[in-house]
Amino acid sequence: MAEKLDDAAAKILMLMSHRGFIWGPSPEIYNPVKGSYEFGPLGKLMKTNLENYMRKKFRKYQFWEVQCPLIGSDMIWKASGHAERFYDFIIQCTNPKCQRVHRVDTLLESLGYNLTSFSADDFQKIIKEDKILCPDCQGELGSVTTQNLMVTSQLGFPASEFILRPETATTTYLLFPRLIQFFRTKMPIFVFQMGYAFRNEISPRKMLLRTREFEQCEGQIFITPEQEMNFELFNQAAQEKLPLWSAKQQIAGDENIKYYSLQEALDQKILQKPAYAWLLFFAYDIVKGLDIPLENIRLRQHKDDEKAHYAHDAWDLEINSKIYGWTEVCGIHDRGDYDLGRHFKYSKKKQLKVPSQNKGEKIIPHILEIAFGLGRLFFFCLEQAFTFEEERNVLDLPIQITPIPFAVFPLMKKPEELSKIAMEIYKQLIDNDLGAIYDETGSIGKRYRRTEEVGVRYAFTIDHQTLDDDTLTIRNIEDMSQKRIHQSDIIPIASKLLRGTITYEEIEDLSQKD
Amino acid sequence: MAEKLDDAAAKILMLMSHRGFIWGPSPEIYNPVKGSYEFGPLGKLMKTNLENYMRKKFRKYQFWEVQCPLIGSDMIWKASGHAERFYDFIIQCTNPKCQRVHRVDTLLESLGYNLTSFSADDFQKIIKEDKILCPDCQGELGSVTTQNLMVTSQLGFPASEFILRPETATTTYLLFPRLIQFFRTKMPIFVFQMGYAFRNEISPRKMLLRTREFEQCEGQIFITPEQEMNFELFNQAAQEKLPLWSAKQQIAGDENIKYYSLQEALDQKILQKPAYAWLLFFAYDIVKGLDIPLENIRLRQHKDDEKAHYAHDAWDLEINSKIYGWTEVCGIHDRGDYDLGRHFKYSKKKQLKVPSQNKGEKIIPHILEIAFGLGRLFFFCLEQAFTFEEERNVLDLPIQITPIPFAVFPLMKKPEELSKIAMEIYKQLIDNDLGAIYDETGSIGKRYRRTEEVGVRYAFTIDHQTLDDDTLTIRNIEDMSQKRIHQSDIIPIASKLLRGTITYEEIEDLSQKD
Repeated sequence: MAEKLDDAAAKILMLMSHRGFIWGPSPEIYNPVKGSYEFGPLGKLMKTNLENYMRKKFRKYQFWEVQCPLIGSDMIWKASGHAERFYDFIIQCTNPKCQRVHRVDTLLESLGYNLTSFSADDFQKIIKEDKILCPDCQGELGSVTTQNLMVTSQLGFPASEFILRPETATTTYLLFPRLIQFFRTKMPIFVFQMGYAFRNEISPRKMLLRTREFEQCEGQIFITPEQEMNFELFNQAAQEKLPLWSAKQQIAGDENIKYYSLQEALDQKILQKPAYAWLLFFAYDIVKGLDIPLENIRLRQHKDDEKAHYAHDAWDLEINSKIYGWTEVCGIHDRGDYDLGRHFKYSKKKQLKVPSQNKGEKIIPHILEIAFGLGRLFFFCLEQAFTFEEERNVLDLPIQITPIPFAVFPLMKKPEELSKIAMEIYKQLIDNDLGAIYDETGSIGKRYRRTEEVGVRYAFTIDHQTLDDDTLTIRNIEDMSQKRIHQSDIIPIASKLLRGTITYEEIEDLSQKD
Repeated sequence: MAEKLDDAAAKILMLMSHRGFIWGPSPEIYNPVKGSYEFGPLGKLMKTNLENYMRKKFRKYQFWEVQCPLIGSDMIWKASGHAERFYDFIIQCTNPKCQRVHRVDTLLESLGYNLTSFSADDFQKIIKEDKILCPDCQGELGSVTTQNLMVTSQLGFPASEFILRPETATTTYLLFPRLIQFFRTKMPIFVFQMGYAFRNEISPRKMLLRTREFEQCEGQIFITPEQEMNFELFNQAAQEKLPLWSAKQQIAGDENIKYYSLQEALDQKILQKPAYAWLLFFAYDIVKGLDIPLENIRLRQHKDDEKAHYAHDAWDLEINSKIYGWTEVCGIHDRGDYDLGRHFKYSKKKQLKVPSQNKGEKIIPHILEIAFGLGRLFFFCLEQAFTFEEERNVLDLPIQITPIPFAVFPLMKKPEELSKIAMEIYKQLIDNDLGAIYDETGSIGKRYRRTEEVGVRYAFTIDHQTLDDDTLTIRNIEDMSQKRIHQSDIIPIASKLLRGTITYEEIEDLSQKD
């Protein structure tokens, strides 16, 4: 599917591929598969850093990570409701030479329809009345049907059908009896899972934004109704402000996003529960910490006709992509007792219930959920960070997630001592787990350009003065300014810059000293 | 399949599950699926640490990580040879009430046959002549046939068949044209991939050792024949000693494993190529660094009848499991030009060739490969670390991979100041990314027992003296010894212990001071 892109967007996508971030569609040497991508050496370093960033954020608030199987029995997905409800509406072209299958909502949206929730009949009516034709061949379209999005697989001998999980969340819910035991019956329980999910998308598109295999980072709070209203973490965050776009505002056509503190949002009844309000803050805090420009982040509430029938409340954290516009990167869901209730019904396991605080009777715990698309988050961090200046392309990624934070250069290849010292410093950085690259090829200017384009934050350059007094320059790619520091200070300075315990501005410049 | 275990083995497996390392078979609340497991909160922390340990080892030698899709077109696996050759021999029971399918080699091995490479005819002959019956029902067995081990999946609409990759390695090979460009044509190229692979095992068994979805960590060196014989890293490691069990020794029935330096192994023609010899060292170095007892590690060469027809040489790194005996955890393969040669033949892409150093003509690069089973490595680290003393169970994991290296305890719940200080120290540790647990429930002895069993290395205990002079005790779980340190030294001491830059013995004990 050809997507029209402006020049900057095309340049960003080109650099992502040429600089070793994302390759594909894969396999490039054979017939590539739509929506199949590889993370190249720089992309993979950045992705690992992003995963570690997420882990750190989740662990800070006592979320514990688990890892569940990708392949499961169909029983799980019958109980979860996915077998019945997890589908898209599709329609096939009746022209025998075309026969292409389209996703109905995508097709209508591309024609300018503004859709939220429609039934098969609603769709059929639009297509009939507005005489919508196949966009590929102008052929007549058939009937609207549904297509379950779960990916099946055959295992065993003789083979049985298994399901590749369409989300991580359900596999985490199934652990509840184990978790409640692990945490010695103490609620609420904070848990998260990062990993693959699979959906048989009708038409994969928009690079990493809609693919058939993808990675999620989903966190859950298993909680009682009383704890939702009396939530310790809320108090620390009550004055934090969030860009909220409520359903009411959307219905009124008010596109003016306002900032509300969590307390104001509760007081004005935009949000109902302190625990859920905190989870919105948590999602926002994660994205903000990745240096996504604030004007490109908003929290959008689902309108009633978008919401799942069991959802008490649902908001999406959206990012304004430079290439694809506003797109969901995280869903925050108040799922009530729906999930554990379904699994209680299907499994009859009494360990899915906990004592109620009020009446001593047993209740099904509620679930508050935060669901990130990890590939999307990666993609947005990367595309938002590309900035094009007259003389250079800069990848302005935060130091915690940039693939290689430091570079070490000898000013020139001669005398050899420069390279020797530079190589030694490079090895010290590597041994201290401080990501670094060594480069002596080409002019120093070219080396700066090459490394700025892939997100190196600071370059250490060994020059003739180094041979005299053991000092060298540290260069900040952001503003291209330089300072002289002592060689023996490189490791402590680099460690502190990486951990964010000092800023570049705070580094003492020895060349200013007399 | 019931596996007979001794008491210690059963206790280890029980603790793995009860303490939150490995749960399953999954899903526990429904019909569990054979060979399907979850990593619980402590297992997942440890697994993430193990992955970071592997990354650090690979990065130290300039291996760059990539990530490729799990699902691919069947074209890839036709070209790789898997469609044709990747199968097990199976046989079905003819008793209509049983009809169980058995893997022939496993069946015969369980009956005491010592097998390496057999054809279908060989197997059929044994089964007929020795009158082997179905072990489940004593029914007659049918004919030996083959079963391809690749897991298929349906995607798209209308659906086409796709393959869930049976290994990570091939997906890395396909990147060669991109890699050679990324590294600006400089060979050798060092690359690795950690991720899922899928095999339709006839009978999953032995916990994480044989499952249908599993994780690998496979590294490749793309290299020219000249570079294999003249390999820079070899020189640094030439005097390192490895426990080698050659094919010749195995054939001679000599079970006495001897240590050879890399140089000796080349001189005595046990190994042929410096680059490949270095890769054996690298595999051994990774496992040794995880504190697996040296007597439980050996490198076993494949005999000619075990080796793939294209393999120049192949060795397995094996670990002597406390539960399952000697088992492969890593294969080290000299694959020659087989893989890129096949992909050149099928894709006709000239970027799969590189200039030869000698003649100026283009050649297919060779591949040297190191292939770890990540789940197996995890499992062996965990089971080898359980030690049972009279009064306590100790999980003696190295600090780099233990799930939670530090614990913080107030000696007692009263006075409240103790808990307050302990909680503050705990938060400092977490903020500095130093994994820690806080516990104030039960006697201090019970808390020591509880944390020793899950691999905590050092416990900080806040007692009454802390209120007087800001000192507290650090306890080493290994020998249960204690020292007093100053509260303000906790973070630097914990950081250094975790990074291995000081040992417990080097910490100054303030209680010894006058």
